[in-house]
Amino acid sequence: MFTPQPIGFVRSPYTGTKQIPKGLGTKHEAEGVLEIQPEFERGLADIEGFSHIFVIWVFDRSQGVELVGTPPFDNRPHGVFSTRSPRRPNPIGLTVVELLRREGRMLHVRGVDMLDGTPILDIKPYLPNIDAWPDAGHGWLEPYLHAGIEPRLKKPYRPPHRD
Amino acid sequence: MFTPQPIGFVRSPYTGTKQIPKGLGTKHEAEGVLEIQPEFERGLADIEGFSHIFVIWVFDRSQGVELVGTPPFDNRPHGVFSTRSPRRPNPIGLTVVELLRREGRMLHVRGVDMLDGTPILDIKPYLPNIDAWPDAGHGWLEPYLHAGIEPRLKKPYRPPHRD
Repeated sequence: MFTPQPIGFVRSPYTGTKQIPKGLGTKHEAEGVLEIQPEFERGLADIEGFSHIFVIWVFDRSQGVELVGTPPFDNRPHGVFSTRSPRRPNPIGLTVVELLRREGRMLHVRGVDMLDGTPILDIKPYLPNIDAWPDAGHGWLEPYLHAGIEPRLKKPYRPPHRD
Repeated sequence: MFTPQPIGFVRSPYTGTKQIPKGLGTKHEAEGVLEIQPEFERGLADIEGFSHIFVIWVFDRSQGVELVGTPPFDNRPHGVFSTRSPRRPNPIGLTVVELLRREGRMLHVRGVDMLDGTPILDIKPYLPNIDAWPDAGHGWLEPYLHAGIEPRLKKPYRPPHRD
């Protein structure tokens, strides 16, 4: 295997997990900065041309593993690989963010759902021809979609807005 | 940080990197199996309802890091974070695959681009409302898209087919 090393850290408005919007209809609109370590800045060459990027990061404040658990917006347990739960065997998070602009080793992005200070493991270009599957199903979340409500919160479901 | 552990291994038709289709118009249609370790099988509960899943895996046969490199299908160098190159600071790969069926701890999938025996770090449900950005740009690949050719191979570009 390998020894994970942070290539940078997330600057986010969120300092506690309760501040992060969760649930099926959540729009992640928060802006933040991906601050890449100086020694990796050369690896950012040409990143500014992409509109969206993957961020692979570490749930560094998550503790323990829960193979089967109940998400905050549902009342039934699901396998951890069927959720985005932080309590995973490898505590790795994945987020698609919109790249607003680059300033040197600072990537200004929209759509952060990480805590401030989160270590970043990798950044990859989002390539719609292999990564965008708009017709993919929602799995166990599907019935809630059809009902137009979020599982536990019982709020009206609003499809995500895209500019 | 954390110590990565394989939650399973990819069974793929590819035993050498040269066998794996690469390039802009590549359709990854190869079928394979994600063989999850017995101790993590409970974490798969409800996965069978999803049509697509993310696989986060390790480039376990990649050596070294190349912060700026030339992809196999281009003739200009790009930063590693602007490519899907295996020679990354953290050798982590990411692939969206179609989930065909589950048999116990075996996930039969379409769209593998990993070598046989590749260690799997994580599986996450693909959620189109946060993960699908069909209108995302192609960054430095964009001019090649418009020209209708792949950079070096000079083959006609064919948009990916979706059933």
